[in-house]
Amino acid sequence: MTKIRLGMVGGGQGAFIGAVHRIAARLDDRFELVAGALSSDPARAATSAAELGLARSYADFAEMARAEAARPDGIQAVSIVTPNHLHLPVARAFLAAGIHVICDKPLTATLPQAEELVEAAARSRALFVLTHTYAGYPMLRAARRLVAEGALGKIRLVQVEYVQDWLARPVSGKQADWRVDPAQSGEGGAIGDIGSHAAHLARFVSGLPIEQVSAELHSFVEGRRVDDNAHVLLRMGAARGMLWASQVAPGFDNDIRLRVFGDEAGIDWCQSDANRLRLTRLGEPSQILTRGGPGFTGAARVPAGHPEGYLEAFATLYADAATAILSGTMPPDLPGLSDGMEGMRFIAACLRSSRADGLWTRL
Amino acid sequence: MTKIRLGMVGGGQGAFIGAVHRIAARLDDRFELVAGALSSDPARAATSAAELGLARSYADFAEMARAEAARPDGIQAVSIVTPNHLHLPVARAFLAAGIHVICDKPLTATLPQAEELVEAAARSRALFVLTHTYAGYPMLRAARRLVAEGALGKIRLVQVEYVQDWLARPVSGKQADWRVDPAQSGEGGAIGDIGSHAAHLARFVSGLPIEQVSAELHSFVEGRRVDDNAHVLLRMGAARGMLWASQVAPGFDNDIRLRVFGDEAGIDWCQSDANRLRLTRLGEPSQILTRGGPGFTGAARVPAGHPEGYLEAFATLYADAATAILSGTMPPDLPGLSDGMEGMRFIAACLRSSRADGLWTRL
Amino acid sequence: MTKIRLGMVGGGQGAFIGAVHRIAARLDDRFELVAGALSSDPARAATSAAELGLARSYADFAEMARAEAARPDGIQAVSIVTPNHLHLPVARAFLAAGIHVICDKPLTATLPQAEELVEAAARSRALFVLTHTYAGYPMLRAARRLVAEGALGKIRLVQVEYVQDWLARPVSGKQADWRVDPAQSGEGGAIGDIGSHAAHLARFVSGLPIEQVSAELHSFVEGRRVDDNAHVLLRMGAARGMLWASQVAPGFDNDIRLRVFGDEAGIDWCQSDANRLRLTRLGEPSQILTRGGPGFTGAARVPAGHPEGYLEAFATLYADAATAILSGTMPPDLPGLSDGMEGMRFIAACLRSSRADGLWTRL
Amino acid sequence: MTKIRLGMVGGGQGAFIGAVHRIAARLDDRFELVAGALSSDPARAATSAAELGLARSYADFAEMARAEAARPDGIQAVSIVTPNHLHLPVARAFLAAGIHVICDKPLTATLPQAEELVEAAARSRALFVLTHTYAGYPMLRAARRLVAEGALGKIRLVQVEYVQDWLARPVSGKQADWRVDPAQSGEGGAIGDIGSHAAHLARFVSGLPIEQVSAELHSFVEGRRVDDNAHVLLRMGAARGMLWASQVAPGFDNDIRLRVFGDEAGIDWCQSDANRLRLTRLGEPSQILTRGGPGFTGAARVPAGHPEGYLEAFATLYADAATAILSGTMPPDLPGLSDGMEGMRFIAACLRSSRADGLWTRL
Repeated sequence: MTKIRLGMVGGGQGAFIGAVHRIAARLDDRFELVAGALSSDPARAATSAAELGLARSYADFAEMARAEAARPDGIQAVSIVTPNHLHLPVARAFLAAGIHVICDKPLTATLPQAEELVEAAARSRALFVLTHTYAGYPMLRAARRLVAEGALGKIRLVQVEYVQDWLARPVSGKQADWRVDPAQSGEGGAIGDIGSHAAHLARFVSGLPIEQVSAELHSFVEGRRVDDNAHVLLRMGAARGMLWASQVAPGFDNDIRLRVFGDEAGIDWCQSDANRLRLTRLGEPSQILTRGGPGFTGAARVPAGHPEGYLEAFATLYADAATAILSGTMPPDLPGLSDGMEGMRFIAACLRSSRADGLWTRL
Repeated sequence: MTKIRLGMVGGGQGAFIGAVHRIAARLDDRFELVAGALSSDPARAATSAAELGLARSYADFAEMARAEAARPDGIQAVSIVTPNHLHLPVARAFLAAGIHVICDKPLTATLPQAEELVEAAARSRALFVLTHTYAGYPMLRAARRLVAEGALGKIRLVQVEYVQDWLARPVSGKQADWRVDPAQSGEGGAIGDIGSHAAHLARFVSGLPIEQVSAELHSFVEGRRVDDNAHVLLRMGAARGMLWASQVAPGFDNDIRLRVFGDEAGIDWCQSDANRLRLTRLGEPSQILTRGGPGFTGAARVPAGHPEGYLEAFATLYADAATAILSGTMPPDLPGLSDGMEGMRFIAACLRSSRADGLWTRL
Repeated sequence: MTKIRLGMVGGGQGAFIGAVHRIAARLDDRFELVAGALSSDPARAATSAAELGLARSYADFAEMARAEAARPDGIQAVSIVTPNHLHLPVARAFLAAGIHVICDKPLTATLPQAEELVEAAARSRALFVLTHTYAGYPMLRAARRLVAEGALGKIRLVQVEYVQDWLARPVSGKQADWRVDPAQSGEGGAIGDIGSHAAHLARFVSGLPIEQVSAELHSFVEGRRVDDNAHVLLRMGAARGMLWASQVAPGFDNDIRLRVFGDEAGIDWCQSDANRLRLTRLGEPSQILTRGGPGFTGAARVPAGHPEGYLEAFATLYADAATAILSGTMPPDLPGLSDGMEGMRFIAACLRSSRADGLWTRL
Repeated sequence: MTKIRLGMVGGGQGAFIGAVHRIAARLDDRFELVAGALSSDPARAATSAAELGLARSYADFAEMARAEAARPDGIQAVSIVTPNHLHLPVARAFLAAGIHVICDKPLTATLPQAEELVEAAARSRALFVLTHTYAGYPMLRAARRLVAEGALGKIRLVQVEYVQDWLARPVSGKQADWRVDPAQSGEGGAIGDIGSHAAHLARFVSGLPIEQVSAELHSFVEGRRVDDNAHVLLRMGAARGMLWASQVAPGFDNDIRLRVFGDEAGIDWCQSDANRLRLTRLGEPSQILTRGGPGFTGAARVPAGHPEGYLEAFATLYADAATAILSGTMPPDLPGLSDGMEGMRFIAACLRSSRADGLWTRL
């Protein structure tokens, strides 16, 4: 089995999500990282590439796209792990060069950028994968299948939350700085960084579009220019929902919980207990479904009782991306461009709704 | 120690909450139930009273108020456990007779009724206790003290939910019928029956008033005339909050969770693990405070590790009521008339907001 | 419904378990406490009785038994809540007087005393109830029924633990002193005080006798004359088991866990989550059975989701005792004399085995 | 950073633990798998090697050891993932060739084999790593540090369990067959396969040797020739302990729990909640320490709240092995030969004790 040749833009020394992408790409042995433009600082880019043992290091992503496209052994796909405002130009360059793109979320920093990206993708035959990590969790995929098969009946309620506390005080550092700078991150703070994940999960599992939102975005830490807490009500067809994204909730380091209720059954999942899914059919005791356990039909690298976590979920997206690249078709559970657009519309609608004092706003 | 002579209106055979009030009144041995008008149906009232061994049974609450007030050994307090629309007339009769009232929540069926009740109480020297059960849970009292002492810093967020599934399908029966009939229960369904508890908890622990709400009340079950799910955003001074009350969420039989976050610390409590409270100070590991454990200062009937539950929480309200009756002063943790009024304003504001498509509405 | 007239021996001011018995007796309104010899110190007995509003107070239990038996309105039953070494003389006196006995565990301080008690009971028509609290937990009764109905198949394993930390350091005070004094408590420390509960649970749910034990009793706190930790292997017919009872395990205040496994299914219960029982049939997802939830057939005072705890479990034993007294027959889930004898044999066998360096020892 | 050239013996198609070793070796990018003798069946070995894209495939491990040792670019280390009875001959061959060995547990099938292996290792300069997976869990390493620093005081109790249900019925298949065949697995069944892990954990965290055991090994499934359940009492210096290893406990798929108690504090960890560790100092509330959270000093690939699991724990052993190979010194948390010998002595002592009806037996 030949490995897919992979490049990376962003993700130099000290970057969190770049390292995660690299582990994820490596875990199932489907990719080989051979080239990178790891930093906008050329010296740092070179040092980082040397540390990682990359075959080819570039000071500039545009040059990298051109050069790799020209090589017979050039990269087949690129991972984009820059701050959000660079997603568009970087993705455009590689899509134009016919190189598949695996891009971190959210899609771009702004909705107009996202629309430009969609156009760029339409002109390319390359695929576009968006790494909404949580779509890689086996029990969330199981939940999605249960909903799709009708096990919950008609969906009534979607309750989702993504809660952190690391921005409860003013902080600085590589991770924090760009995330609270609207120029790099986009106008949304918590709503963009983690709310977009939560919104994706709500749609991913329920199978329903978010049609309208009523949002209250708030910034609790003095001087912060973006929201650090988002309260959002959702209308998803006939279903109703609540979404809470917060970065200022002491005691919650990265807690995600999703509950979906239909007229026949409900499900409950949280990331801190990621290998289990509680399913309750009305009038029956709750059942605890487990990754690898009885009735589980998804993929599992290790048997039930051997916990998988965040990195495995991420790796599953890369495994799906490999399948997509080799087959030319996106697998159904793998987030892509339309998911990214939905996320950007969601962020934009929340911003508009919040500015209009919670007016129900169409996406 | 002489026991307080207690009467009861409502709570005949088959009633859920009447039996709970009787156990709660008995548990700490501060009350003796001696009289009752247990049902609006005279035969049922008599049978129920005989079953309970009551000294005096009445067919009519007004007659009971008059007769008991006239007796030297008449009741000192009455428990009102009727459907909501009867709270006002019954309470008015006993308050007028100078008999203390212990009333189930919500205060009344409608806001105008509540205002009438406040006037009636103002004309009486008798006390008015409202049984917001959850105010009796030791760890919620501990949480309230932590907030009041400033352990959480300035409060930023209040997230509360009260979730059931028993009305997920059309149901009938003694418990369900009056709760989904606006004439008996009031215009609010879930928002009145359980949302009022959640709103009280939010205020009880955070110490903040609910000033504005943006609500989406929804009725999922066909033909139901009141809401069975309520999504509410809260503005509580500088704090923001979310309240979810649902009766249609399969897998949740009576789950209450309260989380309050300040700029220094956060707390997390749920009824299914009622004897513990998680406290997290920023930058420190979470602590698990326990009823009766290290640092616990409240009352506990049994040592740590011997779980207390719902009935004990309810009994604590009765113990407080006994203290109130004997001392003439309401203890600070015991809900009363103003809490009831706040609850009614909350319900009314949610109804108004929901009809105005989520418009932020002052209480 | 007339209440049963109840007396109490022991349980004066400051006593833990006496207060628990009184709440338990009161909770379901089946008993009325009218007489007591609440302390061996006459002054304290009188003060305690006055505080509780008892109709009749005695300085001496023997006198109490005689006097009450002679009165037409004398007590019908007595609760014995003294230190263990007094269980025999007190029980003998009341049994001889034809008064039903509700006795705290363990049965007596020593096995010979237990044998004397059995003889005394054989000469009386009065009933003997032993308050093994945990036999009152609804989900343990449900577990017992599941085993009895064969839902687990043939039982293979019984794992039980009862873990505390309150004696991890040398302590003194009313609760501790007699429990670590062999003259009052019996030769067993942890094995007698809490190990006897654990052994009862193992038998209660599995339906199997404990036939042999291999024990290591240990005393970790310097100067302590009884064991504060007990490790015991069990042989129960073809099944095997482990029992751990400890009073020196920091972080466990009163944690009881029971797991029983058959060749078809297993169950898992712990007191800190007392309203749930996990049942797993081989090849199926675990089910979470709940008190009052789907399929639950036992008694429940309040609906599912309203947690019941330790006091309600204790009250259920009193409710059963009331049924026993009125009907003359012990209900099948109510522990009695033979359970007490089994417990005493268990303690004695553990002591013998431990002294013989863990030799497998028959009960 | 150059990667370490790695070979593998065993782990062909369908093998569970071979695939785990490969992911673990790859995850942190410190190893490159280049050679293998993946199966004793030459055809299968070749196919498996081709599937994995190995540079060099061998039909025989002895030939592999010779050939690789002779090459300038030969492997520096080999992973041994065969059934237990092959550990000795394979390890001997590679140690003799001066190639570092990373071997799955238990060390060998029998104690005499283990002694031979120790001698073989003594004659080699190569290192020997034993993959006791659980020593790679960050919170167990944190626990070990807490104990070593004296945070628990003097250790009194060690309670460990490793519980599965996959052998509750007669099963066959690649995973099961050799594990229940004494010729391949050794005389111990559950005690060897998972009890050895549990024993290692007990020692790893407590820092105490297991000096004596009293064991009852049992085989519940008819016709099974090795134990499927092990109950063991432990003497570890002045401390006492209990170990339970079972493969027949329905509802437990691979549950490991370790509790260690000293005279000052106690800790509690379980694999199903692997990113947390509960620490309770006497007289203080329990604290929940988290991987990556406040006070955590170990290594973490992703921030707190992003769960790591079994594969990351395994990868940490490989990362440690890389460090060991490059530095020539075993890191203190990495299990090696002496841990393997302790494990084999433990298994042998349990077998002897069980045959002697639980006689306390020295290791």
